[in-house]
Amino acid sequence: MGSATNSKPKLVQGSLGYVLEDVPHLSDFIPDLPIIAHKDSARGVHFRRAGPRQRVYFESDEVQAAIVTCGGLCPGLNTVIRELVCGLHNMYGVKAVLGINGGYKGFYAHNTITLTPKNVNDIHKRGGTILGSSRGGHDTTKIVDSIQDRGINQVYIIGGDGTQRGAAKIFEEITRRGLKVAVVGIPKTIDNDIPVIDKSFGFDTAVEEAQRAINAAHVEAESIENGIGVVKLMGRYSGFIAMFATLASRDVDCCLIPESPFYLEGPGGLYEFVERRLKENGHMVLVIAEGAGQELFTESMQTMDASGNKHLQDVGLWISQNLKDYFAKEKIMPINLKYIDPTYMIRAVPSNASDNVYCTLLAQSAVHGAMAGYTGFTSGLVNGRQTYIPFYRIGEGPNKVVITDRMWARLLSSTNQPSFLISKGGNEDKREEATLDKLNEHFSDKK
Amino acid sequence: MGSATNSKPKLVQGSLGYVLEDVPHLSDFIPDLPIIAHKDSARGVHFRRAGPRQRVYFESDEVQAAIVTCGGLCPGLNTVIRELVCGLHNMYGVKAVLGINGGYKGFYAHNTITLTPKNVNDIHKRGGTILGSSRGGHDTTKIVDSIQDRGINQVYIIGGDGTQRGAAKIFEEITRRGLKVAVVGIPKTIDNDIPVIDKSFGFDTAVEEAQRAINAAHVEAESIENGIGVVKLMGRYSGFIAMFATLASRDVDCCLIPESPFYLEGPGGLYEFVERRLKENGHMVLVIAEGAGQELFTESMQTMDASGNKHLQDVGLWISQNLKDYFAKEKIMPINLKYIDPTYMIRAVPSNASDNVYCTLLAQSAVHGAMAGYTGFTSGLVNGRQTYIPFYRIGEGPNKVVITDRMWARLLSSTNQPSFLISKGGNEDKREEATLDKLNEHFSDKK
Amino acid sequence: MGSATNSKPKLVQGSLGYVLEDVPHLSDFIPDLPIIAHKDSARGVHFRRAGPRQRVYFESDEVQAAIVTCGGLCPGLNTVIRELVCGLHNMYGVKAVLGINGGYKGFYAHNTITLTPKNVNDIHKRGGTILGSSRGGHDTTKIVDSIQDRGINQVYIIGGDGTQRGAAKIFEEITRRGLKVAVVGIPKTIDNDIPVIDKSFGFDTAVEEAQRAINAAHVEAESIENGIGVVKLMGRYSGFIAMFATLASRDVDCCLIPESPFYLEGPGGLYEFVERRLKENGHMVLVIAEGAGQELFTESMQTMDASGNKHLQDVGLWISQNLKDYFAKEKIMPINLKYIDPTYMIRAVPSNASDNVYCTLLAQSAVHGAMAGYTGFTSGLVNGRQTYIPFYRIGEGPNKVVITDRMWARLLSSTNQPSFLISKGGNEDKREEATLDKLNEHFSDKK
Amino acid sequence: MGSATNSKPKLVQGSLGYVLEDVPHLSDFIPDLPIIAHKDSARGVHFRRAGPRQRVYFESDEVQAAIVTCGGLCPGLNTVIRELVCGLHNMYGVKAVLGINGGYKGFYAHNTITLTPKNVNDIHKRGGTILGSSRGGHDTTKIVDSIQDRGINQVYIIGGDGTQRGAAKIFEEITRRGLKVAVVGIPKTIDNDIPVIDKSFGFDTAVEEAQRAINAAHVEAESIENGIGVVKLMGRYSGFIAMFATLASRDVDCCLIPESPFYLEGPGGLYEFVERRLKENGHMVLVIAEGAGQELFTESMQTMDASGNKHLQDVGLWISQNLKDYFAKEKIMPINLKYIDPTYMIRAVPSNASDNVYCTLLAQSAVHGAMAGYTGFTSGLVNGRQTYIPFYRIGEGPNKVVITDRMWARLLSSTNQPSFLISKGGNEDKREEATLDKLNEHFSDKK
Repeated sequence: MGSATNSKPKLVQGSLGYVLEDVPHLSDFIPDLPIIAHKDSARGVHFRRAGPRQRVYFESDEVQAAIVTCGGLCPGLNTVIRELVCGLHNMYGVKAVLGINGGYKGFYAHNTITLTPKNVNDIHKRGGTILGSSRGGHDTTKIVDSIQDRGINQVYIIGGDGTQRGAAKIFEEITRRGLKVAVVGIPKTIDNDIPVIDKSFGFDTAVEEAQRAINAAHVEAESIENGIGVVKLMGRYSGFIAMFATLASRDVDCCLIPESPFYLEGPGGLYEFVERRLKENGHMVLVIAEGAGQELFTESMQTMDASGNKHLQDVGLWISQNLKDYFAKEKIMPINLKYIDPTYMIRAVPSNASDNVYCTLLAQSAVHGAMAGYTGFTSGLVNGRQTYIPFYRIGEGPNKVVITDRMWARLLSSTNQPSFLISKGGNEDKREEATLDKLNEHFSDKK
Repeated sequence: MGSATNSKPKLVQGSLGYVLEDVPHLSDFIPDLPIIAHKDSARGVHFRRAGPRQRVYFESDEVQAAIVTCGGLCPGLNTVIRELVCGLHNMYGVKAVLGINGGYKGFYAHNTITLTPKNVNDIHKRGGTILGSSRGGHDTTKIVDSIQDRGINQVYIIGGDGTQRGAAKIFEEITRRGLKVAVVGIPKTIDNDIPVIDKSFGFDTAVEEAQRAINAAHVEAESIENGIGVVKLMGRYSGFIAMFATLASRDVDCCLIPESPFYLEGPGGLYEFVERRLKENGHMVLVIAEGAGQELFTESMQTMDASGNKHLQDVGLWISQNLKDYFAKEKIMPINLKYIDPTYMIRAVPSNASDNVYCTLLAQSAVHGAMAGYTGFTSGLVNGRQTYIPFYRIGEGPNKVVITDRMWARLLSSTNQPSFLISKGGNEDKREEATLDKLNEHFSDKK
Repeated sequence: MGSATNSKPKLVQGSLGYVLEDVPHLSDFIPDLPIIAHKDSARGVHFRRAGPRQRVYFESDEVQAAIVTCGGLCPGLNTVIRELVCGLHNMYGVKAVLGINGGYKGFYAHNTITLTPKNVNDIHKRGGTILGSSRGGHDTTKIVDSIQDRGINQVYIIGGDGTQRGAAKIFEEITRRGLKVAVVGIPKTIDNDIPVIDKSFGFDTAVEEAQRAINAAHVEAESIENGIGVVKLMGRYSGFIAMFATLASRDVDCCLIPESPFYLEGPGGLYEFVERRLKENGHMVLVIAEGAGQELFTESMQTMDASGNKHLQDVGLWISQNLKDYFAKEKIMPINLKYIDPTYMIRAVPSNASDNVYCTLLAQSAVHGAMAGYTGFTSGLVNGRQTYIPFYRIGEGPNKVVITDRMWARLLSSTNQPSFLISKGGNEDKREEATLDKLNEHFSDKK
Repeated sequence: MGSATNSKPKLVQGSLGYVLEDVPHLSDFIPDLPIIAHKDSARGVHFRRAGPRQRVYFESDEVQAAIVTCGGLCPGLNTVIRELVCGLHNMYGVKAVLGINGGYKGFYAHNTITLTPKNVNDIHKRGGTILGSSRGGHDTTKIVDSIQDRGINQVYIIGGDGTQRGAAKIFEEITRRGLKVAVVGIPKTIDNDIPVIDKSFGFDTAVEEAQRAINAAHVEAESIENGIGVVKLMGRYSGFIAMFATLASRDVDCCLIPESPFYLEGPGGLYEFVERRLKENGHMVLVIAEGAGQELFTESMQTMDASGNKHLQDVGLWISQNLKDYFAKEKIMPINLKYIDPTYMIRAVPSNASDNVYCTLLAQSAVHGAMAGYTGFTSGLVNGRQTYIPFYRIGEGPNKVVITDRMWARLLSSTNQPSFLISKGGNEDKREEATLDKLNEHFSDKK
């Protein structure tokens, strides 16, 4: 097996033609231990399967682990923290675990707490993160200095896209310095928009909690003539939460997501659909992902920026205002629109049972990997199996993850909403060849 | 006993010096049945106690009841509807019950459904109102015409302040026409700001549901440096929901309500308090009732109206923007403010067990009263007892109901927030004589 | 005012003929401070109103408080603990608060923890009691020895009937020794069966949580032919939880409580009613309080004890087995009975918002009373007001608190179940004079 | 492609060496339409992928669908019913859908209701099944007679193992008679013990709901000295619910499942472990699947049957009694054991969001398959994809589905409980070769 350069693919060619995209191992840089690739039988790109190894690279007493959480809140953060601490303790007898407070900056802000099975015992029943978090810039050099100074040799980094890119830089700097430090990522995004992995932790909980908002919108809409309930849900680049919440709820008449463009006016447009639904049913519920309709939105925002109206940067407020204006201007009918933004209420709940189990597996896998000496990897579920994914695969950017046409077709048949495909410009051309049946064969579902 | 003129007090002087503010009886206008006031033993103003009567005024077969819900949503509306229908059916064998759809207007919009124990069986498990609702104007004459045309002789009107005033007018018109029609109100206000009665239905549920928003605000605030969670709760004229939610949650650092004025700048002001709490704890939660700080708000709104920024009419957005601006301008510290408005999510939940029981008692009392021939009354809990309250007593306006200083003192000692009494103008003068201990003797709690 | 002998009524005769049943004050035994009874205006038995006093009896620094929880679990225990600690700290600057672990025995088992606002901050969000509890015997002398040894001068005792009697003994022994120690009780019973007070904390939460079990029983019963769902709820001497849960749920066909005897066989009996309901609706739900049907139960238990079958001591299992046997024996129809006992699931939940507020008021009142030097009292809500009730009034036994006929009549009209009054022996005689209307005037509701 | 004999494998050999286990198509028996197998690229056993087909076999107007639910309750039944009705209506314009009441027997008991999108609109928010269910025998011939008589040509059968075997018989009889009737199964088992498929609907919800019981057991156990909370969960042949609930909760000290035998007495046994945990922590929680410890159980049951004690047939009561007896007999310490059986409360809840989505996909797949003319298949998720599985594959018996050692190892490292492997008889022999690391390569997870 060839030695991997930092953050570069470490590809293992199997005899049967498959490719294992392996993760770095500390022995790649600090040679003392040969590892052997598993000879799996199928072709295609593979990742190293997560799990305990016969050869443990770190002595229990030697380990000084550190855990940090970065970015926005997501249900399950505390469960991951808890399971890292308990996993290290119960499975490997590791006692020295440090919590870095307030995100990456906490490394050099000397803001840490000792984590023990006892003091993390109940934290999974609370939302948020006991370590606190932060957004924005950080200094990789100072972080690695701090890691070196404190004698930390396992770093567990829980965070989203940007955080994982930061982790890759920390990993590179550590490799450059030749430190015996395992750097492990645990991907976090409530939006479920991380490529490669099956789903991100907290997503199930978010979809569950979104039901409350949709249900409230439905009740409000139903209780008044021409009632419209508008719910904005998370999803900057992908509409997973909006789509799954819609499929789960069944009370939604229209779901708008970033992956599927729509237009407001004219035949086949949103206004026409809303008008028709109101005439048919007397009420309707519209769910919109925060990243939906960016093009429309940006255009109108330019005009609005001039008038300095900041609040309309929220797509939910924007669509609500547009609907109100349209129905008022066109004198079609008086509408009663109620807008609900449950974002912060969703992010802050504790993870549900399903996410708790998932967080446990992610954390245990991460611990097994680090203890076995692997580094520069992210713990993730791929095709239903816990794997170690090299950092460079995650950093490829979130906008690659989109909802498949198959899943979207299911949603359309569930809401009976138009596909908004026959747009002015004719995006129909792009798609018309892709008949549903063809898609069935060529695409696979995310989830 | 003298005959009561419409909507005028019907006072009964008891031998022991008490006054019974009795409710009209159909026999006052349609003479056929003498009634006798209860000779209760204590002095003071009394209301007729609710409950079944030996003499039933209506024959079961003769009754044609109608139920209507008006105004905004409130947990428990469906429970009241259900219990009116089941109460009439189970207790008195009344089979003909009509639901008026879409509020008062439904009377003449010919939009009704037949209500039976079977079709209302499960509705109390849903939020909203199955009858729909509406706000705004209505035509009393047309309503009474419709009542007369349809042969309705019991009208149950569920709604807030404005709705009860409408009910009083309908009652007057019915009395004027000499119709044998009992008009019964069931007071509805999620804000708990109806005078005379102990509490309004749905209030307990609203306080319970508000916990979610406060908890989310707390989790968000705790998870980031200088995090501020702002939660706006219902309460246009009184801060009951805000205050009880604060007392129940214990995660709130500051609660602002209409009854207790506050000011933003200077010593003892809100900004100073927020700054201090952030320095002490690193985070804080602020709960604000929608009617709090009206004076401050109105002033600044005038400036804002000029720039056409409508969204700042929301006090929650207003205080959030002000806090952000102040901390940015004064360069004190960067703050992370998250604003949550759970209003529609609270209004739309089904009522909890406690409210379900309360709705049941209100509805059963209303049915007993109407069946006994009483009219022009509202069913309400007064000092822990179900009573019949004459319409004119409810119509006295919601702004008379305020939180007592005793309750407010409890909140202050729970949040440790300043009382904001030492204002510029010196509202301290007004209050300083009223020491806490004196208040203990002179005021009684609402609830 | 005369000095009160221990545990004896300290009655104050007001000029207007009322009687204030006052609570002891430390100055009664350790003379240094005159107190004056409030001259309230109405007649009848009164209790001292709770609240802060101008004269504070203890110096903040001098106070060494202790808190103990005894008996079975009840939602709200942790809230009371939290509010005692925070109340002492925030309102009076008291820093020394000791938690006695494991109930009364913890006093001499040297099992204590220091309680601070910080370490009790979140405990109200958890069920149970952080102090642990215990049942059974304890040694009053050893407890008071421990109080004396540790320099404790405020003892807060949270517990039920037996615990309050224990508190009275501790109070007597303390008085006998002439110690400056305030002994304060906070009554706890999930059953709501404590006399004098309006309701006990945790009751609302219990009724709310009971809805889950009833709902499940309803779903199970509805999903199968001749399905019967049986739910046993708490209530040894009084059926408050069963009754309120029934009123709140509306899915219950029959509710059996200790206060209202029933019989199984023959015309008007339970079997006949169950059979009729099944024939009418195809399913039914029966709620039974744990203390219901004791006479029937005891008889049959005697036979059963011989065969050594212990499990049938549970009234829920007993009634379930009897129903199964009857329908099998009589070959009426095959029934599908599902029995649910949610007792432990109800007891262990955290208190809801309404109970949290109530616990806060109880705890704050207790603190105000102790700080003012009152002792030998229980903090309780009486007629909607926080009061101090002398120990001897609480110790009068739980079996005096019964559900009023008024409330029971409401339940009967809600479930349409028979009153089981026309029993063999003729309990009808006892009740027939008491017509419903009379009851309306003579009885007042509990709640 | 060769014609398939009834219920016999219809295997398609792909050019690349894979085997497609295809499902029957109506055209196999009623020849009119050739179908072509997809040429997937990988080897191994494959199932036909679910989804809409270009060729629709039934005309919308021609379809007369029937839906039936059988066996015990499971969260999601109503969602599946709803989505079948809405799927048929929205995706294919099918209007004639019949609900068969009360399980299989309802076919010939003439107990049916018409199902429309309107009357199933909200049913997914309720637990249970609106169609009712039944257990036990049924007459295949009479069912097929009824199908023929009513002109039903699509039968959707929702039920567990036995129900699916019944469906296979109905399918055979229909094929024998040469009827153009598609028979489609939707597998239901709250235990998650159906082979082939990834997981069964309702399972996620069950695990979620089980958290309540575990949490209550934990609170009860913690609140008293030597408290033991015992929770029995569903799982006759497999311990999925117990295991996942344990992993999700983290409050469990010991989890016993059918797949992993245990013993009570002696070194390494359960009693020893319980004793140790109590000495270490003062309390513990034990979760037991209903099918765990069958061998031990059966032995002791034989003795007990003699004394006629029926209630001990419940493994939860049995283990509770054994623990009590052991600690009493051995005089080790007094224990306080609380037993919770939440079975009926879990089964009866509505499905959560995740299960709602899953039910939707299952139902939509079923509808696509039937409309395309496939028959004799079950709709199921296999390796993350919706597929059509031939009946014979499901009928192979539930006891084949066991928890993998990998998953079980995760649980052991999470609870730190003994593996109970070094038993008297030496089951260690069977397992010792299978080291954990080997297992990692050879077994794949269920889920």
